[in-house]
This record gives sequence, C-alpha cells and structure tokens, in this order.
Amino acid sequence: MIATYQQRCQTRVDAALESLFDAPRSELARLYQAMRYSVVNGGKRVRPLLVYAACEALNGDLDRADGAACAVELIHAYSLVHDDLPAMDDDDLRRGQPTTHIAFDEACAILAGDGLQSLAFEALADPRHNPTDANLRLSMVLGLARAAGPAGMVGGQAIDLGSVGQRLDQAALEVMHRHKTGALIEASVQLGALASGLADDAALRSLQNYARAIGLAFQVQDDILDVESDTATLGKTQGKDEANHKPTYPALLGLDAAKAYALELRDQALHALRPFGSSAEPLRELARYIVERRS
Amino acid sequence: MIATYQQRCQTRVDAALESLFDAPRSELARLYQAMRYSVVNGGKRVRPLLVYAACEALNGDLDRADGAACAVELIHAYSLVHDDLPAMDDDDLRRGQPTTHIAFDEACAILAGDGLQSLAFEALADPRHNPTDANLRLSMVLGLARAAGPAGMVGGQAIDLGSVGQRLDQAALEVMHRHKTGALIEASVQLGALASGLADDAALRSLQNYARAIGLAFQVQDDILDVESDTATLGKTQGKDEANHKPTYPALLGLDAAKAYALELRDQALHALRPFGSSAEPLRELARYIVERRS
Repeated sequence: MIATYQQRCQTRVDAALESLFDAPRSELARLYQAMRYSVVNGGKRVRPLLVYAACEALNGDLDRADGAACAVELIHAYSLVHDDLPAMDDDDLRRGQPTTHIAFDEACAILAGDGLQSLAFEALADPRHNPTDANLRLSMVLGLARAAGPAGMVGGQAIDLGSVGQRLDQAALEVMHRHKTGALIEASVQLGALASGLADDAALRSLQNYARAIGLAFQVQDDILDVESDTATLGKTQGKDEANHKPTYPALLGLDAAKAYALELRDQALHALRPFGSSAEPLRELARYIVERRS
Repeated sequence: MIATYQQRCQTRVDAALESLFDAPRSELARLYQAMRYSVVNGGKRVRPLLVYAACEALNGDLDRADGAACAVELIHAYSLVHDDLPAMDDDDLRRGQPTTHIAFDEACAILAGDGLQSLAFEALADPRHNPTDANLRLSMVLGLARAAGPAGMVGGQAIDLGSVGQRLDQAALEVMHRHKTGALIEASVQLGALASGLADDAALRSLQNYARAIGLAFQVQDDILDVESDTATLGKTQGKDEANHKPTYPALLGLDAAKAYALELRDQALHALRPFGSSAEPLRELARYIVERRS
C-alpha cells in the first residue's frame, strides 16, 4: 500500500519539479540540464512523500503542498550533487547512474547544486508554486533555511567529514545524523503540516517527534543495508561506509542490536502519531516501510 | 565622501554579519569558522552599501535594512568561495589572503559556501534579522532567490565558464555580466528599496535602471583594472582574465573605448536617479566611484 502512495506522490512531485527546469535562455541550457539530471532520476521522493503525508494527516489540500514538496527535494538533490564531488565522498555512481560531475563536469556540478538550493527557496516564496498565505510561506522559508543550513544538513555533512576514521560513540553518531539527514526530514514534515494551513502547535510537536524517530530509523536502516546488500541492489558501491572507516550503527552496536534499534524507533514514530486518526495512515505506513525496505 | 559612507555601511553590516557566525555546538565550530573566514575579510561591502543607500534614497530607516544587507553579502561571499575552487577559477588568493579552500580544505569550502547561501535566506526570513512585514520579507526572499539562482548569478557563472576561450561579442558578454554580477547588484538595490517599506513601482523601476547601469559599469571597470593594475594593488593575480582567454571589455572594444563606455554607463545611472532628491546622493557618489576606483 505504501508503494502505491509513494508512486502517487512521486508522480505528483515529479510533474511539479519538471516545470522548474525550463532554461530561460539558450546560454543556460547546459546548467538547467545538469540541474534537471540531478533531480529527475527516479528517486523515491521520500521527503516529498513526507510533505504530502503530513499535509494529509491534518486533512489539508495536497494542491497546497506541491511547492514545499519540490523545495525539500531540490535541497536533497543539491546535497547529493555536492556530496558526490571528488573533494567530498568522490562517488561516480548514484542509483546506478553517473553522478552529476561525471555526466557533466565538476564545475557544472558545483553550480547545479548551488542553483538547486536557490530554486528551493524560490519555489517556497513564489505564490505560483506555493499558494499558502504570506506568513505560512515565510515560516516555511525560515524552517527550510535552518534545516538545510550550517546548523542543519550542511552542518551534519561537516560533522560527517570531520569524523571519518574516528571512533564516535552512539551519542556523537546521532548528533551527526540528526543534522545530516534528520533536519531535512523534520523540515519535510513541518512544511507539509504548515502547507495544510491547519496545523496547531500540538500537532506540529507530535509530527516533529514522529519525524525525529523516522529520520534516525532511516539512517540506522541505511547502515544495515550498507552492510547487508550487494552493490547491484543498492545502486551504489557496497560497504563503502565501512571502507571509509565511517562510523555506522552495525559497527557500533552490532548488527542485531542495530536492527532492534530500528524497530524501537519505528515504534516511537507510531506512538507519536496516536493523536491522529486514519488521515495519518500514510505516515504510519512509511514508518513501517523504512525499517522493512531492502534498498 | 563615498569613502566615509562606505566605511559606515561596512561597520554596520560587519556588526550584523558577526552575529550570524556563533556555532550552535562545538562539532560545528570549524564549519562556522570557515563561513566567518569567507565573509569577515575586509571586503568593501559594495552590495550592502547598495542596500543601505537604496533604503536611504527612499528616506527609509536603515535599521530595517540590516537583514537584507547581510543576505546579499552572504550570497556574494558564498559565490566567491565556490568560484575560487580548483574545479572553477582555481584561485589561491583573494584580497591578498588564502582563499577558503586553501585556508581550510576543499570539502570545507564547498560546505561553507552552501551554508552561507542557506544563511542568506534565513537572514531575510527571520523577523529578528529583517523586521519588515511578512509580504515585504517574502518579496525580498523571492527577489534574492531569483537573482542568486540559475536564472541569475549562478547562471552567469555557468555562462562565464562555458565561454572561456571563445570570442564573445559585446552582446554576449553583457548577457554574461548581467547574470553573473548584475543580478545580485540589482537585487541589492531592490531589497534596500523594499526594506524601506516606502517603495512604489515607479521608484523600483528607476532604481532598477540605476542598478543595471552601475552593475555593468562595475564590470567594465573591473576588466580595465585587470589590464592596468599590478597584482599588489588588486590583491589578486594580475592579467588572469586575459591569461584564461576570458573575454573582457578592453579586449573587445579596446582600452580607450572601454573607458568611455564605463563613463557612459555612469551617466545612465545618474540619469535614472533624477526623480530622487538629495537622499539619493550616496547612490550617485557610488556611481561616480565605480568608474574612478583604482582597485
């Protein structure tokens, strides 16, 4: 069932994203191609799904959530383009395809990433993309800027790079993940809730607790999959984290304890959704899917 | 006189910028140091000056313009950090100091640039930094996102990289500059005018014409200085544009015609300010300074 919901969200956000990549003049065609290539890649659109599902949990109109769904995916896409650069993780493949700096070149990949970040804020601020009222749009811009920035995702990437080869304990590892991936996942849920125009403070708090738990569960499961999957299934080089001596949950806790932790986080996420009725079912399905997926 | 005004703006924006670089936790200290290093560097703060001077031209309160002044400088600073990277212009020095990827490392410079861009939008969206009403703040976010993004500054950088070694004509060169440097200069003036809370459409149009002219004048004069100055005065490697076979105005028009063109653009800028009284004097002084400066 989550697969169907995921496909609906993917179709929906992909259509909205596609409208953002028309180059306004021919000199910019290659840059727009590189941005489009970095975004239109068959990705699962987990963050847009969270936007839509959070909006739906509050019985909001999904037409109001497209701008936010695009914005979080644009931020995610830009972060992958820059993470893959030679000076960062130096990855040639992502989802089995050449990364942006391989398919284009390194300068073009840096600029495409930079442009995608700007485009994310444009999608939130522009009422044509984000038809919510001005105060909500501003809260969304502020939420995304904090989540994406140095106190959020970018900070997490910096912590990650600084921790290569170190023996981090679990607390330090969670600080990294809460920044690197958790902040944008929390922002996705927050923006979706705001897009509904129907979120009160209690609902925002419950959804934040949900988002924190699944954000971490997502990462724990990623670490488990990195150990267990082969390269073909995962679409990236297997065991790369371990080869880089990056700290992972299986390395830290052992594989069985890491699996138990993922399940515990799923249960925390489901618990946080207790105030919500059946409208939150997609969010619940996602929490289950995150720890059950094989890629 | 412009020197005094420039110093006042510099002191003002530097104090406002300084407040943005406190790392929220020790793991992020190095990233925040790299961001601060990239921004707090004795720069002339031309774009913040434009924000303040445009606000002042409309008799606005400068206290309302600090957020916008920070935001345009953060975007400018991030673009320099990324432009200096080995895969881009590969510059080791800027204003006589090691560039960010030399002083830190390449990965840190990529992330510092990314973080500075997020911080720019946070500074505009946060009412503590930008105490204007919600609709004006949103217009500022949208204006900056467009000016900084793929249809603006980032697009200009892409055009520039794509034109190395080519014989561009004057029209093509101006397309590049209007994107690469002009868009952010126009946005600076626009944001300053919006920050005043007192801008009508006619004033915004006049100021946009002013900004277009000085943006181009700035670039023409930069090209002239690149030919004429020695490395010590300019703080960067002299003749680098020519060595890279990048098209420049002196190469295209000849040095004397390039100088005449700079003066013509100055006069266009002054003409655009005719509707304004003495409150626009700093903008006028700046137009004169741009074509008279020696570095």
